[in-house]
Amino acid sequence: MKSIKPPCFISVEGGEGAGKTTLISKFEGILQSWGLSVVKTREPGGSLLGNELRQWLLNRHKSIKIGAKAELLMFLAARAQHIEEVIAPAIAKGKIVLCDRFNDSTIAYQGVGRGLGLSFVRNLCSSICGETTPDLTFFLDVDPLIGLQRTKRISKENAAAGEWDRMEAEKIEFHQLVRSAFVEIAKAEPERFFSIDASQALPQVINSCEQILSMRFGIPK
Amino acid sequence: MKSIKPPCFISVEGGEGAGKTTLISKFEGILQSWGLSVVKTREPGGSLLGNELRQWLLNRHKSIKIGAKAELLMFLAARAQHIEEVIAPAIAKGKIVLCDRFNDSTIAYQGVGRGLGLSFVRNLCSSICGETTPDLTFFLDVDPLIGLQRTKRISKENAAAGEWDRMEAEKIEFHQLVRSAFVEIAKAEPERFFSIDASQALPQVINSCEQILSMRFGIPK
Repeated sequence: MKSIKPPCFISVEGGEGAGKTTLISKFEGILQSWGLSVVKTREPGGSLLGNELRQWLLNRHKSIKIGAKAELLMFLAARAQHIEEVIAPAIAKGKIVLCDRFNDSTIAYQGVGRGLGLSFVRNLCSSICGETTPDLTFFLDVDPLIGLQRTKRISKENAAAGEWDRMEAEKIEFHQLVRSAFVEIAKAEPERFFSIDASQALPQVINSCEQILSMRFGIPK
Repeated sequence: MKSIKPPCFISVEGGEGAGKTTLISKFEGILQSWGLSVVKTREPGGSLLGNELRQWLLNRHKSIKIGAKAELLMFLAARAQHIEEVIAPAIAKGKIVLCDRFNDSTIAYQGVGRGLGLSFVRNLCSSICGETTPDLTFFLDVDPLIGLQRTKRISKENAAAGEWDRMEAEKIEFHQLVRSAFVEIAKAEPERFFSIDASQALPQVINSCEQILSMRFGIPK
């Protein structure tokens, strides 16, 4: 059997309310319990510039118009800085990078959801990121109706009660397009992707993912 | 002789202190005196988003790090929005767009000055802008030592006295690289470019440019 190198860059992808943030925190604990050094990060964000751009990209209350292409390029600017400041240095130091969203989100949301074209966005991502791309990706698949309901519930518990960001506030058809894009992207790269039914209860989702991590890191569960 | 269609999108390019802004204003007056409807704009800027990004890209006092790739992508985000909101609608209405800097600046500054690669940046610009590119470009060529001296003098007269922006503040070698890049870019497209020795006195520069405009618009001077 071919031996696979343990991953050093892991991303978690999926629509709104799929449970990415919760899962990433669980992953961090699991990997640390195996003695691994972990850098947990997210997109857009991860650097000072990225966090500033995040505010613009997700805060729908700003009066500034952002077209689809400008949005795409701002996500990529945040990513380029994120790679330079955080991801590449962490990988070079032998750390495991755990990232909440990466290129696949851009391909699904901007390429398909916004209609800029899957190949166009994929090529752009590739020309910006080069080799710095995830070697293991978890896709949390959930019906957008369920995911958005969760997001709404979480938002209500937050300070910004009931307020959705620019992406969450899109029509349900947009989120359905994005979901089907994720499904296609994941199918096309079965070696990198692990797809999970994220409508299941969280302990089940975590259990499935932990098995994959155990297998990929060669740690008996 | 082949008849050339009058230009509808004119850009003015060159290093710091070459006289672009002054010349653009002169062009505006000339074209208006010929009964043409003109939209005068600049990069980065031209839209609300573009002006916000301009602040980040040029204000060197911000503590936020912006790497070469992120910088390039932010310039392109500003450009994409500028095209969508201002340039494409103006051209569609039959107006003449006069733009202070466009893709050639990005190729010279980010591609060559920052070392991202001329072809890499040119291809990226082309994939973002499509057909919306200048059909006439004036390159104001001046020794960076002269240009920066002018900029310093102008800055001293401004409120932000003596303060240079992030580009102006680069080393002289950077500006020399940028200048040689502009020279190469202009040489490669002689049908689009008109290069002027911008170390000459302004009336001479204006006179040469006016002749080109007269010729291209078929207006006897």
